[in-house]
Amino acid sequence: MSLKELSALMLPAIEAELQRQVERLNQPRTKSFYEMLTYHMGWTGEGAGPDAAGKRIRPLMVLLCVAACEADWKSALPASAAVELVHNFSLVHDDIQDNSPKRRGRSTVWAKWGAPMAINVGDALFVISNQAMLDLSRSHPASTVLQAAAILHDTCLELTRGQFLDMSYEKRTNLTVDDYWPMIEGKTAALISACTQIGAILGGAGDATVEQYRVFGRDLGLAFQVQDDILGIWGNEALTGKSAASDLVEGKNSLPILYGLSQKGKFAQRWAASAISPAEVAEAAQMLINEGAQEYSQREAQRLTNQALEALQKTNPKGEAGNALYELADKLLNRES
Amino acid sequence: MSLKELSALMLPAIEAELQRQVERLNQPRTKSFYEMLTYHMGWTGEGAGPDAAGKRIRPLMVLLCVAACEADWKSALPASAAVELVHNFSLVHDDIQDNSPKRRGRSTVWAKWGAPMAINVGDALFVISNQAMLDLSRSHPASTVLQAAAILHDTCLELTRGQFLDMSYEKRTNLTVDDYWPMIEGKTAALISACTQIGAILGGAGDATVEQYRVFGRDLGLAFQVQDDILGIWGNEALTGKSAASDLVEGKNSLPILYGLSQKGKFAQRWAASAISPAEVAEAAQMLINEGAQEYSQREAQRLTNQALEALQKTNPKGEAGNALYELADKLLNRES
Repeated sequence: MSLKELSALMLPAIEAELQRQVERLNQPRTKSFYEMLTYHMGWTGEGAGPDAAGKRIRPLMVLLCVAACEADWKSALPASAAVELVHNFSLVHDDIQDNSPKRRGRSTVWAKWGAPMAINVGDALFVISNQAMLDLSRSHPASTVLQAAAILHDTCLELTRGQFLDMSYEKRTNLTVDDYWPMIEGKTAALISACTQIGAILGGAGDATVEQYRVFGRDLGLAFQVQDDILGIWGNEALTGKSAASDLVEGKNSLPILYGLSQKGKFAQRWAASAISPAEVAEAAQMLINEGAQEYSQREAQRLTNQALEALQKTNPKGEAGNALYELADKLLNRES
Repeated sequence: MSLKELSALMLPAIEAELQRQVERLNQPRTKSFYEMLTYHMGWTGEGAGPDAAGKRIRPLMVLLCVAACEADWKSALPASAAVELVHNFSLVHDDIQDNSPKRRGRSTVWAKWGAPMAINVGDALFVISNQAMLDLSRSHPASTVLQAAAILHDTCLELTRGQFLDMSYEKRTNLTVDDYWPMIEGKTAALISACTQIGAILGGAGDATVEQYRVFGRDLGLAFQVQDDILGIWGNEALTGKSAASDLVEGKNSLPILYGLSQKGKFAQRWAASAISPAEVAEAAQMLINEGAQEYSQREAQRLTNQALEALQKTNPKGEAGNALYELADKLLNRES
């Protein structure tokens, strides 16, 4: 089976498990609270559907890693739901923190129900992720469940550290690429690394293999974010400049931007002067190319991709799921949107 | 040993364990994030000290229940830290949601560092509570740790449900006492119930005894909240009216107020007309007395207290810790501030 065929099996199972988990809030008196969660998850409300739900890459990675260890991926479904719920908890809080009115083309939870309710929605998604993880006890020994839960908790602390760094950079003007890596280690790489690591543990892999899966996830996560940052400036949507799709307009702490700032050249001067408008993105993007930011970012993305694939090779992933992991990594790193 | 002497042993151990847990964020690059947590916990910043830290009632209850089961309370310290961290996570988010600038006489986290940072501080306290709970594995079997963690997670979901109800009541004018109980079950009773239940489990109590400890904690929590609500209207601070100390001014969904509204008499009319100013609290408090709200609330507090003490008796709490539990319950329910 190809990645496509495996996804066609796994994704509906992931969605059913997520719904079963979130169902915990479907109780008398809290129906409308429950609806806030199902809205965010992309199941209800205006614009509901697969586009609103997102790609469910993280839970898919968990299950593929389990299967690549030649274990039964179905028994790992609660863990796959747990990582996706953590991801969504962080999105709900992130949208409040960034004051973002839209996500995936729909109103964000805070924009619809206000920040106080949205804080609580994020908290509930977080709680349910913890509960989902403990559901592993139905099929796994208690010590394995604790090991997986500990990884998820450590990851969540990394998420808060990454989030703190990102927010604390807003007022700083002397940022360099050294400030970039610890931020995305926390914000992006930690959770993807948790997915591959937890998948390997639930797949029954030995310590050395689990460690390689961890490295695979981390480097894939870093490469994924760098690729995202490249697209955020030179991707089609970003360059057309018709909306705030460019990270230059958003003022995001992305790798090309931090690299550009550290060059202390024309780009840094332009950046310090005032916010960049949609009409100016093409010019600013060109300045970044001139100062080497695009080349540097592409080289980093390639280096991290190579490292990720090397680590994956060392895990010796088995069968169709193993091939699908290579395919998924390739797809994530060579995407154009 | 009396409650006072046991507290003198346990409270410093609780504080040291809390500090050890929060220390996880004391790392390069996130020092100022760490400081936001230590500020909230009452250890650093202006006004730091025991008054800023709060009474640590919840962790104390955990340890007293363990000791009343004749087990070693020291091995339960990570669990005691976990419940206190959950309590503090909910306070930090609550203060943002309620727009409260002060807590225990000091600026709240959001008032000092802004809501985005404060959301993240609450999230981090929540994550650390999960990590603290898993530290129980050093001294307890994995299955016991999972049992305790599951109770904490279920409790946290109840917290979010209670918080949702409280916020959703803001716009409702037809509230009755039936709306009150599920709200405080979630907001107050669930966590105190988790303390006694987890304490009993870690103390090695049998299922029937654990269940009585659960009921003891729940009814104590409910009685505690009703008592708090009574003081919020007829306590010294509330009646002097010099600040917003009265729940009448705050517009809180408290038991006497909801009882008063359900009478559809003079109080309900006055409440519907406009917000109550500090100068009017004495008159509004008298209206509530005339319409039976004080008597009803006192009767409920007494009924719940009796139920709590009956359940405690059934647990057959042992030794000095057992006596201290009675003493603590008595102190909480007969306090005047």
